[in-house]
Amino acid sequence: MRNKHSKLFEQVYFILVEPQLGENIGAVARVISNFGFTKLRIVSPRDGWPNAKAEELAAHGKYVLKQATILDSFQKAISDLNFILATSANSRDMVKKVERPDKAVNKIYKMISNKNKVGILLGRERSGLTNEEIVSADLLMSIPTSSSNPSLNIAQATCIVAYEISKMENKKIIYSKAESMAKKDDLMKLFIHLENELLKTGFLKIEAKRKKMIQNIRNMFIKAEMTEQEVRTFRGIISALVKR
Amino acid sequence: MRNKHSKLFEQVYFILVEPQLGENIGAVARVISNFGFTKLRIVSPRDGWPNAKAEELAAHGKYVLKQATILDSFQKAISDLNFILATSANSRDMVKKVERPDKAVNKIYKMISNKNKVGILLGRERSGLTNEEIVSADLLMSIPTSSSNPSLNIAQATCIVAYEISKMENKKIIYSKAESMAKKDDLMKLFIHLENELLKTGFLKIEAKRKKMIQNIRNMFIKAEMTEQEVRTFRGIISALVKR
Repeated sequence: MRNKHSKLFEQVYFILVEPQLGENIGAVARVISNFGFTKLRIVSPRDGWPNAKAEELAAHGKYVLKQATILDSFQKAISDLNFILATSANSRDMVKKVERPDKAVNKIYKMISNKNKVGILLGRERSGLTNEEIVSADLLMSIPTSSSNPSLNIAQATCIVAYEISKMENKKIIYSKAESMAKKDDLMKLFIHLENELLKTGFLKIEAKRKKMIQNIRNMFIKAEMTEQEVRTFRGIISALVKR
Repeated sequence: MRNKHSKLFEQVYFILVEPQLGENIGAVARVISNFGFTKLRIVSPRDGWPNAKAEELAAHGKYVLKQATILDSFQKAISDLNFILATSANSRDMVKKVERPDKAVNKIYKMISNKNKVGILLGRERSGLTNEEIVSADLLMSIPTSSSNPSLNIAQATCIVAYEISKMENKKIIYSKAESMAKKDDLMKLFIHLENELLKTGFLKIEAKRKKMIQNIRNMFIKAEMTEQEVRTFRGIISALVKR
């Protein structure tokens, strides 16, 4: 299952705010490219730029890093955008809407469909986003995590946002490559074949139980949603076993 | 938004098959614990065990690593489980159901609600899962990614599965009761029983085709999601047919 790159995704900007570890920058670049995004902005990376560790971890997403914009202020990173989503565990007593990822992404998809440019803010590894940065957001997104270990790595949080947006895009597409199932008639012939052989063996000799047993055996085969080829194979198996 | 640890999640086993990098093992431990999971099995980690890099990357999820089970064979890692999900990009021309994450997880949630133990297979970084490993799965899950960079890091793939299962928990859906599935070990014994009998009959005599045929036959049974009782019934059927 592969997606073509969506034009709409070019309106989504992932923004790393003062990231500390090159590894995380690289992992973010990789995962956004996995889901068809290409726009990355990095505000004042702690260890300077370029960063060898970032390139290593970006793997095949290195092209996203190469074309990333490095900025020296948060304001510059958001100034040309229309809608800002901040990923944050809580609203810190601000009057801000906080949504779960799927709902937040619904909103984002609506925004990009209406030609808006959207920024996704990803905070510092240790301290997250400052109150000032959160204030600038239109919407906060909170990923529900376990109380015993709530803190997600930023590349993992990014993964969830990118994945959820790409799901919105995919809802339009229908995939199906399943083989067609056997005709009911062929399946019935298989049942009769097996049951006749079993009758001869005495396996179904207790008459009181016979009907129920046959039902159970048929059910088992029906659950398998067998293809034509599988029905043929199975009839071959029965013949082979009996011949012996 | 914090979740309490769900009891049901104790029936979910994440299984790393021959992982190469300690960093990835650690990142997987961290992210499953982020979503409230604790069960990790590791089959033959390339760089031995324990692994310092794994511990570093696990961060606050280190307790998951400490209680992880290290195994020297794939079969041992799945033998006591009832339902297996494999994460794989494609079905490799096998007759296997392939689902998107949200649908796959629906199935998993139903399974754990009915007291089944579920395994989530995560393949090697470079080469993924072998055909033999994929055959043993009840369901394949494919995460739709970009054609220009389709390959997700395993900790990111794990993140998506864990996140989607935890979403189900938040929806609190109740499923109707179903019988629990047979253990993989019992299913394997059924396969061996049938294949041994077929070998004696000459049904599998063309060596070039044997492996593929066995794969197809196993697949057909796996699709049936057999209960313990059904496995017993089927072994009785084989014995009866042969005796004749």
